[in-house]
Amino acid sequence: MRTYNVNVFLRSTGTAAGSMEGEGPLARYFDVVSPDGYFGEKTWEKAESKFMTTAAQYALNKAGLTDADIDAALAGDLLNQCITTGYTARDMHTPLIGLYGACSTMALSMALGSLLVTAGMRHVLAGTSSHFASAERQFRTPMEYGAQRPPTAQWTATGSGMVVLSSEAVVEAEAAVEATPILIKHVTFGRVIDRGVDDVANMGAAMAPAAVDTLDAHLHNVGSKVGDYDGIFTGDLGNVGYDIACDLGAALDHDLSQNYQDCGQLLYAPDADVGAGASGCGCGALVFCGYIYNAMRTGQLKRVLFIATGALMSPVSIGQGESIPSIAHAVEFVANA
Amino acid sequence: MRTYNVNVFLRSTGTAAGSMEGEGPLARYFDVVSPDGYFGEKTWEKAESKFMTTAAQYALNKAGLTDADIDAALAGDLLNQCITTGYTARDMHTPLIGLYGACSTMALSMALGSLLVTAGMRHVLAGTSSHFASAERQFRTPMEYGAQRPPTAQWTATGSGMVVLSSEAVVEAEAAVEATPILIKHVTFGRVIDRGVDDVANMGAAMAPAAVDTLDAHLHNVGSKVGDYDGIFTGDLGNVGYDIACDLGAALDHDLSQNYQDCGQLLYAPDADVGAGASGCGCGALVFCGYIYNAMRTGQLKRVLFIATGALMSPVSIGQGESIPSIAHAVEFVANA
Repeated sequence: MRTYNVNVFLRSTGTAAGSMEGEGPLARYFDVVSPDGYFGEKTWEKAESKFMTTAAQYALNKAGLTDADIDAALAGDLLNQCITTGYTARDMHTPLIGLYGACSTMALSMALGSLLVTAGMRHVLAGTSSHFASAERQFRTPMEYGAQRPPTAQWTATGSGMVVLSSEAVVEAEAAVEATPILIKHVTFGRVIDRGVDDVANMGAAMAPAAVDTLDAHLHNVGSKVGDYDGIFTGDLGNVGYDIACDLGAALDHDLSQNYQDCGQLLYAPDADVGAGASGCGCGALVFCGYIYNAMRTGQLKRVLFIATGALMSPVSIGQGESIPSIAHAVEFVANA
Repeated sequence: MRTYNVNVFLRSTGTAAGSMEGEGPLARYFDVVSPDGYFGEKTWEKAESKFMTTAAQYALNKAGLTDADIDAALAGDLLNQCITTGYTARDMHTPLIGLYGACSTMALSMALGSLLVTAGMRHVLAGTSSHFASAERQFRTPMEYGAQRPPTAQWTATGSGMVVLSSEAVVEAEAAVEATPILIKHVTFGRVIDRGVDDVANMGAAMAPAAVDTLDAHLHNVGSKVGDYDGIFTGDLGNVGYDIACDLGAALDHDLSQNYQDCGQLLYAPDADVGAGASGCGCGALVFCGYIYNAMRTGQLKRVLFIATGALMSPVSIGQGESIPSIAHAVEFVANA
C-alpha cells in the first residue's frame, strides 16, 4: 500500500440531508434538509438521486462553477447498479466515472479525484449518497414488517455530500473566486480485509480492521503519528466498530483515545434510537462535507485524516455463506496551508 | 468532454472464459476455458470471482509481476454490490479502487488506470467480468422458468479479462521483461446519454447513442478521423445497436462502414443462438484482452479505438418507469509505437 502526495484544493462542498439527519446535532452544517424521505419525488430511489443532484448543485454553486466546468464526476452509491449515481449523472453534462466502494465512497471519490487532478483534470466533482428507506428495502426487509434490529445494527443515513476538487493552478488563476484554503495532501487506497465477521447487523466489527489497516499504512508512509492530527475521523464504524478500532490501533501503538471520532457516532444525537450509530455512504458524506469541512474552514481543525470504510458484501454473498470483505481509504487534509 | 493524452504501456492481458465462449470463434485467444459455468465452485457467483481471479493471475504472470507489485486494482462487475470484484480483491493484497460502469467497465478501468499511472502509480491491474447465469438470476428470471427472449435481447458473456498497465519508465527499467510495444495514447470519459429507450431486452438500442457521443468527442479532440484507425470496436452493442451506431455516426459524418466492429458480434459464432449477440462486462473484456490484444501484438492492428458501452439501469429503476441511462468510455491504443 502506497500513499500519494498530492496538492489539490478542496474547493467547496454541498450537502442535502434527510429529515432525521436535519434534527441531529450537525443540522446547521447542511445546505438543505428535506422535510421527509421523498424530497418531492414519488419513490425513495428517485428521492436519493434528488439528494445527490441537490448536493452537487450546492457544491458547484459555492465553487462558482457550472457542470460544464467539471471534467469528471466521481460518484457511487449503495443501490444495486448504483442507480442514484447513474440517474444523477444523466441530468448533468459531465463525464461520469462510476465508483463502487460501499460506505468508503466519500473517501474513495476524493482520493481518486485528487489523483485525477494531479494527472491533468482541472475540476472534479466527487461524492456519494445513501437513503435509509431505499437501503432497507434493498438490503433488509420491507419496513412494513417492523423487523427488530439488534443493538449492534446501524442506521443508514439519508442524504448526500459532494465536493469540488480543483487544481491549485486553476484556483489561483480565477481571481474572482476566493481560493479555499484547504488542500488534500496525502491519499492512501486501502486493500480488502476480511476477518471472518458474517453478521450483517454488525458491520462496524467487520469494517474496523480495514480502517486500522489503512490508518497504519497511511501514518507509516507519511511519517506521521496519531497525535499530529487535529482530528482523525472514520466513516461509519458506529459504537461497536469504534471500540474495536481503538483496540486494534492500540495493538499497533496508535493511541486513538485523544483525537479520534467516528462519523457514525456524530450524525445523530447520542440518545437517538439508531442502534450502534449511523452508517451508509451518506453518513461519511454528510459529516465530512458538513461538519468536518466547516471545522476546517473556520480554523477549528487544521490537519485532518478522513478514513471512510466500506463493507463489500451483498445479500446474495451472505446467503451463500460468505463473510464481509471490508475496505477503507484515507484522505489527509491541511487547512490554511 | 475532454480527451487526455497519456503514454502508458499495456503490459499484458489475462483471460478466463466460460465454456460457450470457449466454443466460439475467439477461443484460441483465451488463456483458460472453464468446462462449465461453475469453474470448480459451488455457485455461479463464486465462479465469477474465480474467473476474475484467474484472469488477473494470468495477466500478472505474463507481466512478470506479483500482486505485491500492483499499486491498485481497478475493477467492477455487474452483480449487486460488485461482489465479484470485492471477493476477488480479498484474495489479493493490492489496494482496490472499485468501479461501477456496467458493461463499459473494461474501457473505464483502462482509461482510469492510464491516468493513475500518469499521476504516479507504477503498475495497475484493470478489468472486469460477467457471468451468464449469475446475471440471469439477478437481472431477469430464474433460468428454470425458460422465459422466452425477444430477438433484440443479448446474451451475457461468461468470463473475465484483466490487463496490467505500467508506466513507460518502469517497463524500460526492467530489462528482464520485454516491453510490450502497445501504448495507451488517448482516453475519453463519456457522459450519460438517455434517449428514452426503456426496453431492457434491447440494450443495444439504448447504448448506441452513448457510443457515438463518446466516439464523436474523441475524434474531435484527437483530431483524427474514422479512417485513421485500423479498427474501432464498441463494447457490446450487438446487431441492433451496431446498425444504430452506424446510422448515428453517419449523421455526424463518421463513416463507420469500413473498420468498425462490435465485440458483441465477435464473441460467438454468427449462427449461435444468442439473440442480437453477446453482452455483459465480460464480452468487451474477453474480446479486448483476447482477440484485439493479440491482433495488436502480432501487428495486424496498429491503431485501435476501443469504446466499451454500459447501460446503467437496474430492475428497480425500470420497474419505477425509468428509461435506460447509458455511457461509453474510449481508449486509444497504438501498437509498435
